[in-house]
Amino acid sequence: MRQRFSPDYYINGILTGDRLILSRAITLVESSRPDDQALAQQVLEGVLPHTGGSVRVGITGVPGVGKSTFIEAFGTYLTNVGHRLAVLAVDPSSQRSGGSLLGDKTRMETLSTNPNAYIRPSPASGALGGVAHRTRETMLLCEAAGFDVILVETVGVGQSETVVHGMVDFFLLLMLAGAGDELQGMKRGIMELADALCITKADGDNVANADRARVEYQNALHLFPPTDTGWFPPVLTGSALTGMGVADVWQTIQEHQTLTAQNGHRTQRRQQQQLSWFKGLLQQRLSQNFYARPGIADRLTALEEQIKNGTMLPSQAVDTLFTAIVP
Amino acid sequence: MRQRFSPDYYINGILTGDRLILSRAITLVESSRPDDQALAQQVLEGVLPHTGGSVRVGITGVPGVGKSTFIEAFGTYLTNVGHRLAVLAVDPSSQRSGGSLLGDKTRMETLSTNPNAYIRPSPASGALGGVAHRTRETMLLCEAAGFDVILVETVGVGQSETVVHGMVDFFLLLMLAGAGDELQGMKRGIMELADALCITKADGDNVANADRARVEYQNALHLFPPTDTGWFPPVLTGSALTGMGVADVWQTIQEHQTLTAQNGHRTQRRQQQQLSWFKGLLQQRLSQNFYARPGIADRLTALEEQIKNGTMLPSQAVDTLFTAIVP
Repeated sequence: MRQRFSPDYYINGILTGDRLILSRAITLVESSRPDDQALAQQVLEGVLPHTGGSVRVGITGVPGVGKSTFIEAFGTYLTNVGHRLAVLAVDPSSQRSGGSLLGDKTRMETLSTNPNAYIRPSPASGALGGVAHRTRETMLLCEAAGFDVILVETVGVGQSETVVHGMVDFFLLLMLAGAGDELQGMKRGIMELADALCITKADGDNVANADRARVEYQNALHLFPPTDTGWFPPVLTGSALTGMGVADVWQTIQEHQTLTAQNGHRTQRRQQQQLSWFKGLLQQRLSQNFYARPGIADRLTALEEQIKNGTMLPSQAVDTLFTAIVP
Repeated sequence: MRQRFSPDYYINGILTGDRLILSRAITLVESSRPDDQALAQQVLEGVLPHTGGSVRVGITGVPGVGKSTFIEAFGTYLTNVGHRLAVLAVDPSSQRSGGSLLGDKTRMETLSTNPNAYIRPSPASGALGGVAHRTRETMLLCEAAGFDVILVETVGVGQSETVVHGMVDFFLLLMLAGAGDELQGMKRGIMELADALCITKADGDNVANADRARVEYQNALHLFPPTDTGWFPPVLTGSALTGMGVADVWQTIQEHQTLTAQNGHRTQRRQQQQLSWFKGLLQQRLSQNFYARPGIADRLTALEEQIKNGTMLPSQAVDTLFTAIVP
């Protein structure tokens, strides 16, 4: 039986930067128990005025690109120059694969023992919507605890990058030199979401390859529509091994922050993200309430089969469902 | 007062390819009157077994790219080689701008008098979801009327391309040579949705430019993740003036059809599109019912303002709304 504390215990603990209490509060946020959730909401409401002060950075890339080692190097750099860093993860597959992203903290040995860094694995829940919602709330707790840079890591496959893109100020895509195999697992559309690309493992024999890739991608991106902020996503190279390029990534993020603070786009992006979050939650609640009605789930399965076979019109199926529930 | 006919009148008329009756049925589909909608549903259900037999092609590109002249040339080619062609449009801005896409039929003089082509402007309704829904239903009516190629035109700005991408087998992006100005209005992410790019106006002095652009874009696309069908989007050049490349576009679409028929992806893509259509309609209905409840609309506006200001958590706002409606 977990010990229960008052909302003020959590709120005060978080605001004074107590890591243990922060971790406990995140556990509440991630809990599916209604009493935990109610308490979590009180805590979140209490810290809300102290949130929003961080630079929120999303980092993605397919497995093998070296995300963990990059974050280790990048995070260490950030703490060295005086930042306090929280590293979160969105990995809806973590339950299936048996080990969540960042779960194996030995992958980030230095960072995990760094007093100015806080690492939290992905909540182990199946649905992407739920994982993302909890990560957003966790982000707020971390901001209230004084972390001024939040990194949200995600795998570069599936839909999770789109979701992470929707909760950060800056979205960084890590790539390997030598387009080909590593592109296979990558989702189409993700390149155009990125605020910057970084070609990783630019060390040793690979430096020339990485430079070539950088030029190729930079040329390619110039053929693509610009972002509506006036920001042109740069392509960088970096090495977690030598530390080369790590400072440049931070420099790029800072330039982006300056530009989007000046032209108002950062505020606008965050407002849109908040509204999307709200609309998503509202839709989710409406759907859940609807699907929970007796008989809907079975009918839905049957109707979807007919829709897929082309023997039922979508509008017809919606009418059928709504007729079924109105007494 | 519009004359009313029986469902069978429409169904039989459509199935025998009567263009006047087809047009009347589409008018029913586009009507917002409940009795028209009920009749439209009966007609759609009646023709449903005769739908799905066309090649569905989406065409987009920013204003100035020459969409109308391209469609005129492409459509004329298709009818010359024995196809029957319907041209539809999705343009949610048509109401605002005062003239719907394709509304000015003089832009397609030849095609509009071609007995094997049928041109229908975008339904003049404000919301993209509604326009798209009606266009999908119109597409079914056209298929039942024997049109074996459906072109759905849309402007290359805003969200309409994503929506059109979700209703076609093949998505063609028209581009101008000389990356720059014409990219400004284009939505990011659209390049990665395309099944093929075609550089237009490749005639006269512009041939060399178009060829250069083709090579550049082809190289750029090779750096991007492949589609999950194993299809590599080619970059073509074409001229509505000389007719150059128009047959190549059709050849490309046919190759794509062959590949996706063989590997099962065409069926899968259509099934996913049908399910998305259904889920979208269902969500829309749930939202509408919810927003129609007394007091919700006002509360929603106030809550959204607080969410944007960061003084209210999205989950808190959802709770507030749901608490408000439960008596």
